[in-house]
Amino acid sequence: MQGQVVPLGFSFSGVRCGIKRKGLDLGLILADRRCAVSAVFTTNRMAAVSVSINRAQVASGSARALLVNAGCANACSGPAGAKAHRAVVSAFARAARVPAGGVYLSSTGVIGPVLPTETITPALPGLLEAASPSGLGDFVRAIMTTDTTEKVSSRELHLGGRSYRVLGVAKGAGMIEPNMATMLSFVVTDAPVAASWLHSTIRRHLPATFNAVTVDGDTSTNDSLFCLASGAAGGTPTASAKAALSEAFGEVFLDLATMIAFDGEGATKLVLIDVAGAPTRKVAAAVAKGIANSLLVKTALFGEDPNWGRIASAIGASWSGVLSEKVTIAIGGITVFAAGAPTAAGIDKPSLRPVFTARTVPIAVNLGQGKASARALTCDLSRDYVTINADYHT
Amino acid sequence: MQGQVVPLGFSFSGVRCGIKRKGLDLGLILADRRCAVSAVFTTNRMAAVSVSINRAQVASGSARALLVNAGCANACSGPAGAKAHRAVVSAFARAARVPAGGVYLSSTGVIGPVLPTETITPALPGLLEAASPSGLGDFVRAIMTTDTTEKVSSRELHLGGRSYRVLGVAKGAGMIEPNMATMLSFVVTDAPVAASWLHSTIRRHLPATFNAVTVDGDTSTNDSLFCLASGAAGGTPTASAKAALSEAFGEVFLDLATMIAFDGEGATKLVLIDVAGAPTRKVAAAVAKGIANSLLVKTALFGEDPNWGRIASAIGASWSGVLSEKVTIAIGGITVFAAGAPTAAGIDKPSLRPVFTARTVPIAVNLGQGKASARALTCDLSRDYVTINADYHT
Repeated sequence: MQGQVVPLGFSFSGVRCGIKRKGLDLGLILADRRCAVSAVFTTNRMAAVSVSINRAQVASGSARALLVNAGCANACSGPAGAKAHRAVVSAFARAARVPAGGVYLSSTGVIGPVLPTETITPALPGLLEAASPSGLGDFVRAIMTTDTTEKVSSRELHLGGRSYRVLGVAKGAGMIEPNMATMLSFVVTDAPVAASWLHSTIRRHLPATFNAVTVDGDTSTNDSLFCLASGAAGGTPTASAKAALSEAFGEVFLDLATMIAFDGEGATKLVLIDVAGAPTRKVAAAVAKGIANSLLVKTALFGEDPNWGRIASAIGASWSGVLSEKVTIAIGGITVFAAGAPTAAGIDKPSLRPVFTARTVPIAVNLGQGKASARALTCDLSRDYVTINADYHT
Repeated sequence: MQGQVVPLGFSFSGVRCGIKRKGLDLGLILADRRCAVSAVFTTNRMAAVSVSINRAQVASGSARALLVNAGCANACSGPAGAKAHRAVVSAFARAARVPAGGVYLSSTGVIGPVLPTETITPALPGLLEAASPSGLGDFVRAIMTTDTTEKVSSRELHLGGRSYRVLGVAKGAGMIEPNMATMLSFVVTDAPVAASWLHSTIRRHLPATFNAVTVDGDTSTNDSLFCLASGAAGGTPTASAKAALSEAFGEVFLDLATMIAFDGEGATKLVLIDVAGAPTRKVAAAVAKGIANSLLVKTALFGEDPNWGRIASAIGASWSGVLSEKVTIAIGGITVFAAGAPTAAGIDKPSLRPVFTARTVPIAVNLGQGKASARALTCDLSRDYVTINADYHT
């Protein structure tokens, strides 16, 4: 894909198998040889079949292939769903002549129906045949559901005389408030790092990136983030090279998380909510998510209405320790509320209009009661969100 | 008002003072003499000025008059807001020749602006003059903001040779997920009961009525429920008469709560969510509210789409102890999910359509892990909710 660097050791493809009414709906990331893998998954207790099976499998730390289907979440689908998952994995392993234990399958789409093996299995040979380093674009499109933009980010680093690449791909759109995981996101590198290093890198960057995103407050049954390392670029990275690599992972995570927030279903704006001055990070995150998930804040942003009182109300509803007179609220750098009362700018609402008509709206809250902070990434709530979700299934 | 019984000892009125662009916006409940009062208020820590002042005042247990204004919440309005509240209360007390300590003022409307005393004060003499037992209709209309229906409920009881009446009035619509309180609701009786009895009656009925309601998950800055007892019907109710009276309060609370849910902004459906089989009431309530506040559930209901997988996902996201195979989900009496998999009815989605096209949709969940239960009352989420709230302020 234009402008993206592709790590060595991986091939990609995407084909149409026919689960969705139109478009590509089956994707593949294939490693040339066994590679290191780590992953995190949704905390939703009605997790999809794929999440339960992948979670057990990933403990091995090794992977060879990652299949992704759109159009069917294979969640709440019972024993028949588990059987269908294993049938697809086995059929692929046979076709690719790789051990089934290294083949992962992630599903996304409607909750309830069982994965249609009869639709997927016949498409596997073609998917395998199409796999190549230049197949990235097809893979990216194959994992989209109601996404309107492709979500890809990559970085290239020159460390100790070698080049290392980090590439991430995500799908987002709706049912999005990841918790300890994310939507379907896949990040691959050709650096020679172990599964345990991938694991700690995920844990380090997750809270401020994928877990900071909310579109609609709905934690899905299928959220998964996979990180794969082929080691194909060779070398033995030093501690400082690994630190730089970890930063690159963090940047790719943040790029994808921001794209997911901006492409929330029906969204017209990206909203960046920074909460500081909290006694703990947990409180800061709760207040940031409280603002981000307030329908009244989100609809005011859609209406480009400088109704900051709704932000104040969302703060007060989110944490029982809020002291009104210590709180400051700034929107687009303009302080609207401080010392328990509106500022002059807060009273003169028409002067705030340019801040609300921008494509990106930054909201900064200081609770004045500590040093912890957190960020939430979200979007506004439009009539189109309702339209998309009222008509999604049928 | 037609079909409603009005307790003895109270007068009502509603006038236009000019805070809102049109319609009545100032209401009064006036007691003939000092009466018993109890109230509960929002837990929002950015609570309105009126909430802080009324909360302190109600500790006295006595009331003479209750003023209500729409169009300005007088929240986050600082010391100027508190001064304005006290000025309106003092002006009314002088005009009515009653002690200011018995005069309460509840505000509802936009958050941020200071209460406009110059608009309200000149209207107070006319409001006082208009007060009569037949002024109930004007009072009901004066407290409405984006409400589309009048919310009134009453009961008459014959106990120990006497008649007692209980009458409730509420405003609802948006920014609605009361917590230990409710929207603006006022319930009056002519039974001779003490403030402490009113208090315990409120506490008893609150969880399953007002606190079960959610329109959009936003707990407002101004939620208040006031209960007043004039004693004007006389007598000395026995313990069993008081128990019957408490039931009548509970029925009026539930009527008002249901009306608030059904008249949620933009709502087309009333949704009754019953969660049973939970280890504790807290878990049951969290799961019920988790379903009720899921935008994906609410938009599916608006779209009349039998996409019950979204209910399953909301359950899994709401409680970390969910065991998928113990959960059953029934919609309109039809079980769609049981033993970890869809039922035949759950697979045959078209057969579920009549349940989803009804005006009232009952959703029953059994978690299969205990005996506690809870109910949530909510509505669907329509394009009109977004339209109303994108354009409310300006």
